[in-house]
Amino acid sequence: RPLCEVLFFPVPVTCPEPALSPGLSCPCPLPHTDSALSRLLRRILAAQRSLELCVFTVSCAPLARAVLQLHLRGVRVRVITDSDYMAASGSQIGALRSAGVIVRHNQTSGFMHHKFVIMDRTVVMTGSLNWTMQAIHTNKENVLISDDQTFVKAYLEEFERLWEEYDPA
Amino acid sequence: RPLCEVLFFPVPVTCPEPALSPGLSCPCPLPHTDSALSRLLRRILAAQRSLELCVFTVSCAPLARAVLQLHLRGVRVRVITDSDYMAASGSQIGALRSAGVIVRHNQTSGFMHHKFVIMDRTVVMTGSLNWTMQAIHTNKENVLISDDQTFVKAYLEEFERLWEEYDPA
Ligand SMILES: [Zn+2]
Ligand SMILES: [Zn+2]
Repeated sequence: RPLCEVLFFPVPVTCPEPALSPGLSCPCPLPHTDSALSRLLRRILAAQRSLELCVFTVSCAPLARAVLQLHLRGVRVRVITDSDYMAASGSQIGALRSAGVIVRHNQTSGFMHHKFVIMDRTVVMTGSLNWTMQAIHTNKENVLISDDQTFVKAYLEEFERLWEEYDPA
Repeated sequence: RPLCEVLFFPVPVTCPEPALSPGLSCPCPLPHTDSALSRLLRRILAAQRSLELCVFTVSCAPLARAVLQLHLRGVRVRVITDSDYMAASGSQIGALRSAGVIVRHNQTSGFMHHKFVIMDRTVVMTGSLNWTMQAIHTNKENVLISDDQTFVKAYLEEFERLWEEYDPA
């Protein structure tokens, strides 16, 4: 049956460890309950082969950790982001690059304003959510999740177009 | 068959009149060709009974004109937007209100950052696109369009939640 899910934000601050390190018990004082953030983390961590991340702002540490885990696990991770915001304080793009994740960004004026992710070329997530703590815990935001192949194909094609357009070589 | 469409931006500047005033010939020097903007306009103008608009920034005049046309035609239009940006220069929210469209907005901190629209309770559009000229003609943006009732219902429920939360009474 088709995957049709929508996550809404903001959500209260909870501990990301149950999603990031399942099975380990965490002694921190935050609630260890489920939330739209932990569901987002689990969806991302479910990728087995490939992750295409095309997100304007990436400063949320738990989401960056999930991407890093995939990369370390051998999943093919490609990141496209906005050049202005990747240099901003709090950006996690530098940490991803230092770990060996390939990142490309726009060279021209105009924002690379997308906020979509594709897992294993079979699931796409898109919506208003930038990967920031403010977006997750303060703003009204949505993330639509679908495995409809018409949608997945459209976003994959856009990713490949931008991947070529932003090739620094 | 299900409606599964994704519009990508930016698009070159074209004349919105073929979408806004079909049948009238326009003498302006802009190209009168189809684009992702004219497709967006036609989708919105296809609403017969209701339009729920929940968009962070609304400054694009052609899109505001489409909403106004629906309102004047007797379609039930409800608008939710962000309080900071509705006061910004170029915002079309004042013009919509002056014409009698009911607009509600967030009262608290945190952005009302959604960018979704529901037509006739049967079609939803969501993505990264704010309703600004910069977004349409300069940024990399996406709008997903679906008539999947799971998606439509989720966004309608979010709209009704926010409509109550932002009730000024
Ligand atoms: Zn913890
Ligand atoms: Zn014209």
